Amino acid sequence: MGDKRQEYTVTFLPTGRTSRVQAGTELLQAARKAGLHVNASCGGAGVCGKCRVVVEQGTVLGGKSEKISAAFYEQGYRQACSAQICEDVSVRIPEESSRRKGGLGTMVPKRHQARRHIFDIEELKQEGGWSPSVEKVCIELTTPAGHDNRADAGRLLQGLSGQYNRKCELKSLVFLRKLGKALRQDSFQATATLEVPVNLAARYRLLDIQPGYQCHRNFGLAFDIGTTTVYGVLIDLETGKFLAEASCYNPQMSYGEDVISRIIHAEKPKGLDVMQNLVTEAMNQLITEMLAKAQPETQAETQTKAALSNRLSGRMLDRLDQPPVARDEINSVSIAGNTTMTHLLLHLDPSSIRRAPYVPTSTFFPSFRAREINLDLSDTCASLVYPAISSYVGGDIVAGVMASGMYSSKQLTLFIDVGTNAEIVIGNRDWLACAACSAGPAFEGGGITHGIRAVEGAISDFSLNPETLEPMNITEGGKAPIGICGSGLLIIVATLFEHGVLNQSGKFNPLDHPRIREGRSGQEYVLAWQDECAADHDIVINEVDIENFIRAKGAIFAGITTVLQQVGLQVSDLERIILAGGFGSYIDLDSAMSVGLLPEVDPEKILYLGNGSLTGSWMCELSNHIRRDVVEVVRKMTSFELSEVPGFKDQYMASMFLPHTDLGLFPGIAQRVKKNKKE
Amino acid sequence: MGDKRQEYTVTFLPTGRTSRVQAGTELLQAARKAGLHVNASCGGAGVCGKCRVVVEQGTVLGGKSEKISAAFYEQGYRQACSAQICEDVSVRIPEESSRRKGGLGTMVPKRHQARRHIFDIEELKQEGGWSPSVEKVCIELTTPAGHDNRADAGRLLQGLSGQYNRKCELKSLVFLRKLGKALRQDSFQATATLEVPVNLAARYRLLDIQPGYQCHRNFGLAFDIGTTTVYGVLIDLETGKFLAEASCYNPQMSYGEDVISRIIHAEKPKGLDVMQNLVTEAMNQLITEMLAKAQPETQAETQTKAALSNRLSGRMLDRLDQPPVARDEINSVSIAGNTTMTHLLLHLDPSSIRRAPYVPTSTFFPSFRAREINLDLSDTCASLVYPAISSYVGGDIVAGVMASGMYSSKQLTLFIDVGTNAEIVIGNRDWLACAACSAGPAFEGGGITHGIRAVEGAISDFSLNPETLEPMNITEGGKAPIGICGSGLLIIVATLFEHGVLNQSGKFNPLDHPRIREGRSGQEYVLAWQDECAADHDIVINEVDIENFIRAKGAIFAGITTVLQQVGLQVSDLERIILAGGFGSYIDLDSAMSVGLLPEVDPEKILYLGNGSLTGSWMCELSNHIRRDVVEVVRKMTSFELSEVPGFKDQYMASMFLPHTDLGLFPGIAQRVKKNKKE
Repeated sequence: MGDKRQEYTVTFLPTGRTSRVQAGTELLQAARKAGLHVNASCGGAGVCGKCRVVVEQGTVLGGKSEKISAAFYEQGYRQACSAQICEDVSVRIPEESSRRKGGLGTMVPKRHQARRHIFDIEELKQEGGWSPSVEKVCIELTTPAGHDNRADAGRLLQGLSGQYNRKCELKSLVFLRKLGKALRQDSFQATATLEVPVNLAARYRLLDIQPGYQCHRNFGLAFDIGTTTVYGVLIDLETGKFLAEASCYNPQMSYGEDVISRIIHAEKPKGLDVMQNLVTEAMNQLITEMLAKAQPETQAETQTKAALSNRLSGRMLDRLDQPPVARDEINSVSIAGNTTMTHLLLHLDPSSIRRAPYVPTSTFFPSFRAREINLDLSDTCASLVYPAISSYVGGDIVAGVMASGMYSSKQLTLFIDVGTNAEIVIGNRDWLACAACSAGPAFEGGGITHGIRAVEGAISDFSLNPETLEPMNITEGGKAPIGICGSGLLIIVATLFEHGVLNQSGKFNPLDHPRIREGRSGQEYVLAWQDECAADHDIVINEVDIENFIRAKGAIFAGITTVLQQVGLQVSDLERIILAGGFGSYIDLDSAMSVGLLPEVDPEKILYLGNGSLTGSWMCELSNHIRRDVVEVVRKMTSFELSEVPGFKDQYMASMFLPHTDLGLFPGIAQRVKKNKKE
Repeated sequence: MGDKRQEYTVTFLPTGRTSRVQAGTELLQAARKAGLHVNASCGGAGVCGKCRVVVEQGTVLGGKSEKISAAFYEQGYRQACSAQICEDVSVRIPEESSRRKGGLGTMVPKRHQARRHIFDIEELKQEGGWSPSVEKVCIELTTPAGHDNRADAGRLLQGLSGQYNRKCELKSLVFLRKLGKALRQDSFQATATLEVPVNLAARYRLLDIQPGYQCHRNFGLAFDIGTTTVYGVLIDLETGKFLAEASCYNPQMSYGEDVISRIIHAEKPKGLDVMQNLVTEAMNQLITEMLAKAQPETQAETQTKAALSNRLSGRMLDRLDQPPVARDEINSVSIAGNTTMTHLLLHLDPSSIRRAPYVPTSTFFPSFRAREINLDLSDTCASLVYPAISSYVGGDIVAGVMASGMYSSKQLTLFIDVGTNAEIVIGNRDWLACAACSAGPAFEGGGITHGIRAVEGAISDFSLNPETLEPMNITEGGKAPIGICGSGLLIIVATLFEHGVLNQSGKFNPLDHPRIREGRSGQEYVLAWQDECAADHDIVINEVDIENFIRAKGAIFAGITTVLQQVGLQVSDLERIILAGGFGSYIDLDSAMSVGLLPEVDPEKILYLGNGSLTGSWMCELSNHIRRDVVEVVRKMTSFELSEVPGFKDQYMASMFLPHTDLGLFPGIAQRVKKNKKE
């Protein structure tokens, strides 16, 4: 997954800094990656003409513009925003496109993205943790005779116990209804599908029975039901291989972007039906899509694996072939989502989630048949939904905690998922504590004058010429700017603050600059002029936007310090930070620390988990240990309702500054701010 | 249940024997009950005119006939077959209507019916065995608050654990879907419906939740699904009271009277669907009928009981009222039936049941929701079907064993249910063994020339004038005879044998008698002449009929001796016999011993259980101990496949005589036969 294109090295002069980027990357982004500023307020639309660079060695694709004369073009001038890398090149940033000479390295810190936290299936296998929640077992039973006319069910149970040491229970009429014919179709050679018990002392549960040898055909699905997006993965449970993945917007979006508006709609007559149908229809569509894409491993691969497995004797091998995955070969579904999404999916009343004191119907959910929630899967397919902790710390977070492995680590870890609400979990293998921080939608572009989601044209990266205070906007897809997305907002506020444009309270310092002006909501900085934009106005960031941003980051940081305080610790005790969610993958760590969103730690200690909810979900499919552990994790987790914790308000007030009132918590930032002030 | 009419005493002269009978009973039956013979071959139709008796004291209703002249009528002559008792009377049996004088008492034994085995609910309560499988619990939960915003489900579970010491589990989405609204409708005062675990260490399972206090409204259903008849009982699980009962023919009857023809039909395309629909439609009809009849106990009764119970506090009482039982207040259904009926009900493939080696799909059946088998009950209603032992020893027999209590008694007991097949269970609290005997349908009138079911006009009782060999037929409903039912057949064969008309091989002795003649199937005895019958032929019993009867009774007796032999015992070790099923209620014990159907024991040791399947079924509703015990009983039961047991064939051959080749097994009969021979 992920397009592994050729990478090339771009060397920037005069600094000599290099950047290693994929073929097709724009020069502007390559410079940004190297921590270098190139003036560019049009965000890569090729409009402002300020991002001219000179290609000195090698060639680039594109980069022509009417703002570059033929003579200059001949000399190697290109627009950095539209010139794409296709080989190793050396590029000079002319002084007019850059910041002043000297001290670049120290003034603009090299931006950090978190390292990816990888969950390794092979490692799981080696550690013996690979035990799918559903297994298939081929069995040869003795044929009934006069002296042995045990019933089919008893014969099967005794066979499974005797041949495979699987003590099973049979709880389903549906299973019994298939049993007689399935056993007789192939002379009492059959394949049983077993749900592996979470509790080691409990019995395996018989889910399905097929005639003949089918035990290499065992597939599972994992889903993350996000408020915005639904992700699915189709997994071969015998090999651990991902056969297909698919995603789509959560169609409930048409009833509002946040959980609250979904709940309000669900409270209307038939509203819950509508919400439930929408999400299951989306899941059914993804299932159809994945089945169309999927192809199990080749026969040869499977045979090798099957031979290693003790569940298939030699003489069964010659029966193998590998047709495409059929819908009724999916035996198990694991699902994670936030508490509201889970309630809507399971058709549970969500109305109390949105009203104080914020009580969900349930935080744990019994396993059920996929059909019970209208998933178009076999009537024997087992389903599991991740338990939640509270109304606002949901199964998606629990899944993320499972994916992060923090619950089994010695290291004191902060797990943080930033979305409309930020959820934090702090702890290690000994204890776990969590809280939901009402961050508001600022990180998703909400409450910000020109805030938008991370769509094409969203300013998602930014730097500032410290001398001219001219901006370098980088937009999603290299399009003319149309607004600011969450990661852009973070880096803009951090950069304006680091360069003294903003003070610690988030107000503009009195600077005389054409881009700084009085707007409708106090002072504002013009990121892009209207004629450089795909908008009918200048794109700005103003003091109210910044205040909203500070509230959001302050709520999160106060959540972290409050939870730590409750357990008698402080931020300096944190040994690791794990970022989950989409925002976590784009976040600039230095900016996050500069503004006081994250505690100041060595960026090497910060890992990015990606979609922890989806990862936790497929881990459940592949490892029954996870199902066992999750019960323990939920039991162990202490949930803090921040508004009920004395002291939270003080923490919140103290966090309403850039980066914080207590600069002692941010020694690195404090030093930079001090240095900037001196200059 | 049962019509308790006024009883009167009839004194018969010259013997002075008396009979205590209900008002409306015919004199003929009263005589029969006193062990007296009155010639009557028309069975009570008033046609043959042979049953004239003289009423000497008191009066009777009816008894007129054109065969009795006005003068004789004045003297008190009446037809015994049509004269009904309405007060105490003295009646003389004239010599021409009777047998010869003297020795009556010894020549015609007083017929015995088995005593009724009564299962006492009050006793069950006192012994602490009364614990319905579903209980309702009223609970007051604390209202959520900022400092206590546990989810509804967790709050409920903790409340049930804390307030009632009920450790519960929640396995149903349906339950969760109701929970939020149910709790909030009455300020977190609610009633939970709990399935009581069979295993004491297991958790209670939450089935349903209702707002407010509803814990006195708890109803259950018990069913016996017979091949011929479906019986249902509606029970108030809080008081143990039976609120209604209903029965109907099993509508599968239109596809054949026996299980084999039902299986054959079920094997056809859609055949199983048809069979399943027929029986569940019948059950649904009975449910509707019972709900229409039912009325729970009055408020006063319930309040007393409720106050005794610790599940209802004082202040809840004033809320009580007693509307009729609603369909969705039925929380539990227990069902018993033979293995084929159970398979058809649960939509399980029955095809192997009818083919050697006679393997059912399953002998145990998971509990399920009533809706899963299309019963028109609430979607939370729990259902349980009695486990079977084998294809031909079904859940009806297991239910009977539970109802008989033999599994917890010290006494070595023979349990026997005679129908198309006879099933026997032998054992006590230490061990249990069972077998199915292929008796064939003789006891249901099958394979007998003029055999019929016990409908109106069926000869069901019989005696013989030992001198004239003239018959006294008693028919169902006092109608002109149309055939012979099972209990009639038994008593006819026994009587003919006892009076030397038949020899030990079941052949007619060479007697010169107008009623004994050569027919189409060997020698035959004319029970009633055509002009006395409601048939277009004489009603006879012939040697082929008697051979079929002997085969049937021989199979049963051989089953008993074979099972006893397998465990190293003999018939003389039996301490008690329990008869189940319809046949058991009508069977004449002396006849059954005379022909060698039952072992010869003191008739006082023989009990009649009635519909053991239905009794076992409602015991399951009222006592969870039974559910626990049944698991143990099934585990403990050794099932013998008679055809596989060496020695069974010898036992069978030895039983093919009246009563048996080994007369040492029947000392009383042997003596009577010897005496008859001498005379």
